[in-house]
Amino acid sequence: MAKTKGPKRPKAETPKGFRDYFGTEVTARKAMLDKIAGVYHRYGFDALETSAVETVEALGKFLPDVDRPNEGVFAWEEDADWLALRYDLTAPLARVAAQYRNDLPTPYRRYAMGPVWRNEKPGPGRFRQFYQCDADTVGAASVAADAEICAMLSDALEAVGIERGDYVIRVNNRKVLNGLIEKIGGTFAAQTVSDAEMAKVWDKKREEDILRTADKFDKVGVEGVRELLTTGRKDASGAMIEGVGLSDAHATHVINFLTAKADDNTQTLSNLSKVVGESTIGIEGVAELEQISALLEAQGYGPDRIIIDPSVVRGLGYYTGPVFEAELTFEIHDEKGRPRQFGSVAGGGRYDDLVKRFTGQSVPATGVSIGVDRLLAALQAKGRLDTTAQGPVVVTVMDRDRMADYMSMVNELRAAGIRAEMYLGNPKNFGNQLKYADKRESPIAIIQGGDEAAKGVVQIKDLILGAKIAQQATVEEWKSQPAQVEVPVENMVQAVREILDRHK
Amino acid sequence: MAKTKGPKRPKAETPKGFRDYFGTEVTARKAMLDKIAGVYHRYGFDALETSAVETVEALGKFLPDVDRPNEGVFAWEEDADWLALRYDLTAPLARVAAQYRNDLPTPYRRYAMGPVWRNEKPGPGRFRQFYQCDADTVGAASVAADAEICAMLSDALEAVGIERGDYVIRVNNRKVLNGLIEKIGGTFAAQTVSDAEMAKVWDKKREEDILRTADKFDKVGVEGVRELLTTGRKDASGAMIEGVGLSDAHATHVINFLTAKADDNTQTLSNLSKVVGESTIGIEGVAELEQISALLEAQGYGPDRIIIDPSVVRGLGYYTGPVFEAELTFEIHDEKGRPRQFGSVAGGGRYDDLVKRFTGQSVPATGVSIGVDRLLAALQAKGRLDTTAQGPVVVTVMDRDRMADYMSMVNELRAAGIRAEMYLGNPKNFGNQLKYADKRESPIAIIQGGDEAAKGVVQIKDLILGAKIAQQATVEEWKSQPAQVEVPVENMVQAVREILDRHK
Repeated sequence: MAKTKGPKRPKAETPKGFRDYFGTEVTARKAMLDKIAGVYHRYGFDALETSAVETVEALGKFLPDVDRPNEGVFAWEEDADWLALRYDLTAPLARVAAQYRNDLPTPYRRYAMGPVWRNEKPGPGRFRQFYQCDADTVGAASVAADAEICAMLSDALEAVGIERGDYVIRVNNRKVLNGLIEKIGGTFAAQTVSDAEMAKVWDKKREEDILRTADKFDKVGVEGVRELLTTGRKDASGAMIEGVGLSDAHATHVINFLTAKADDNTQTLSNLSKVVGESTIGIEGVAELEQISALLEAQGYGPDRIIIDPSVVRGLGYYTGPVFEAELTFEIHDEKGRPRQFGSVAGGGRYDDLVKRFTGQSVPATGVSIGVDRLLAALQAKGRLDTTAQGPVVVTVMDRDRMADYMSMVNELRAAGIRAEMYLGNPKNFGNQLKYADKRESPIAIIQGGDEAAKGVVQIKDLILGAKIAQQATVEEWKSQPAQVEVPVENMVQAVREILDRHK
Repeated sequence: MAKTKGPKRPKAETPKGFRDYFGTEVTARKAMLDKIAGVYHRYGFDALETSAVETVEALGKFLPDVDRPNEGVFAWEEDADWLALRYDLTAPLARVAAQYRNDLPTPYRRYAMGPVWRNEKPGPGRFRQFYQCDADTVGAASVAADAEICAMLSDALEAVGIERGDYVIRVNNRKVLNGLIEKIGGTFAAQTVSDAEMAKVWDKKREEDILRTADKFDKVGVEGVRELLTTGRKDASGAMIEGVGLSDAHATHVINFLTAKADDNTQTLSNLSKVVGESTIGIEGVAELEQISALLEAQGYGPDRIIIDPSVVRGLGYYTGPVFEAELTFEIHDEKGRPRQFGSVAGGGRYDDLVKRFTGQSVPATGVSIGVDRLLAALQAKGRLDTTAQGPVVVTVMDRDRMADYMSMVNELRAAGIRAEMYLGNPKNFGNQLKYADKRESPIAIIQGGDEAAKGVVQIKDLILGAKIAQQATVEEWKSQPAQVEVPVENMVQAVREILDRHK
């Protein structure tokens, strides 16, 4: 069109990092979330839907991953307050648990599903709005609550179509990690380092460095972790990554911890006991893991589904007890065609201090968050996602004056539960109507011109078969199974149903 | 707790005008939307989910109700752009229709369900985040598209539980209204008012004043509208509302239009023909209404469900053709106990210029938006909302060391599809466990102490019957149907199911 002097036209674009979801992208996700909600419901969890908007004050800065403490939220000022979009479903839960503490049952089991927003730099496949699907138990100190979450996660994964053997839920306990740290601290003392010297080398940051390095075990292996814990390591690009500065003996403690995992939980727990030694917190952590393991095995959730694995770390400064992570163990091919493990799709753990921010009172809580997009991608990779085209039967318009007749046909099909529509574009060019049916992935087009109307019949065009014939079929096949049949009007619904059933 | 010098605690509160939804509030809405989505799907509409965030540029200022042109959005600046939360689902659709115009089928039928945000002053029952549920057809100029939307709306209302006879969908056409305006303008000319004088009294604002006044017909009746169109009217508080300044003869035209509705569409259309006279746009509008009426009646959607009603106006400066509104016709009682009509729950119409903003090309579009909260309230008022308590069976903890046993019981119940949970709070006080079951609206509590375990039995406590007995039952009833039974462990699931079935 010619340029005019009118106002500049707005760009028809989503903001950077946001996207739209069409058709089966919406319905397949919904179907998956419905199945998960069914499991959560059966476990006694109640739905909760908080608003997308919270006060910045209520949200706080409690992102699970403190590697990025300045990770942003979308926020704006209103009067004296700052409002923001929620960045996860846990912070709003903490607010709800505090706000309604006199009305909610204790413990309070809730699930929540919905979008969250992160004001991050967008990248390929990295969006600033995405779905989370959480279940948490607030007010239960017992590790039975943690065990239940793990069992429920296992059931949820199987409910959506991840088969047993294709996933494993790995469980660890931050108290055991803290016990390890305590023990390493203790060996400093045993080496008679002066108290001042000790304080200098053994600060909070050093602790976090050790945990952060332990978290890399999966990627860099035993020797990589040893280098990172001691003098440092060259990364893939050749750049030197600074080491944490532990002695080789200390690094060995950490590695013994990370490699404590055995084929059965009993052996793993025994290995862990040795690693934590006399550390009170460490002993407590091992005892909790023993309890979780016993509770799960009593219900039949054995190490083929849920296993204790000391290499699970899951972020810093947030979890206070058991932590867990669901990993899919099958291989997929990455963008370069190389096989790789699918990896983590869900994780969580115990966080006892979130509600305390509001009320001053510590409230024990534990929960899990499923990465909805990753789980969908996994189901897609395994061919378990129902994204079958469900195009409607299209009743074409041969005669503009007989719209009412065509709509009645559509109405009859819909009344029989068949997805159907009349072509609503300009009917002049019949080719456009068939192109439309093609774009909609319609299985069937219905045609009734003046001649057919006079005879009381309709033409039923099997578009799926038609496409196959056009591509590959021999003349013989075409004859035995024509892609277009003429039936009396009163048999239309039945004939359509037969064709639909044939293509199921 | 004692005040400390620590940082000030955040307030555990939703921001003003926002709220949380718990349990059946979430699931009842979801069940209703699922039923509507089923109807939309059968009609060939595809799901679309756009992001909550749009650029302010793409959103524009196209709120349907231009009575409040400065109605706000929640917006914030990012780099050079302003981003905002969507205020409806139509503006994002227009953006999508423009952005993907080469990929989407034409016409494009889509439905969308989700929250929208309005930066308005909150009030009682007036929230700044609420759900909309829309269906639109973009790219179809034919009024068959409008007729289809009306039929679909009728089906959707019946699908969620509004019975035939309890609602009516009223259809009008903005072109008929414009024809009326044109005719009134014409009479000015016929009265030989000078052109300059004519321009002075007959400006856009006057047109809008007439439409806005016509929209008040439902509330103020014939005489009220006449006063408002001419010299003005005293409102309930006694304050004078300025009149539009029409002559009595002109006011009569408007009133003839508003009262053109008859018991059948044919008579209404005949009345409307007289009102619009020679106006081209008016004649076109009446012809469109005739077509819609014919298409709907051919499919069996008669005036008991969908009727032409000239008093439907629906906002200004947005709709360009047919407009429609679904009204619930049954009475409810307001907060003061007075009976009143429930009123409107959905509305929409044809808007042909939304996509043009982006592309410069006019794209015909028509659609409907269901007021989700109002429809839910209507279903609630009619007792058609399934908010039955679905509390879980609670397995109590009599013996802290036998948690694994209790969890196995729970597991057995869940495996049988029964919603169940173990009490996860501190088990010390058994009374608290029963209080918890009460708060959860649990139908059944299961109890197994050491004695029962030794005997291989469980106690099954029917909490619903127990509550009834406590309230009202005679001793006889209590004897014949005890609220607590002892059954062998292996019969637990069966006994639970029998009690649940009894209370269905």
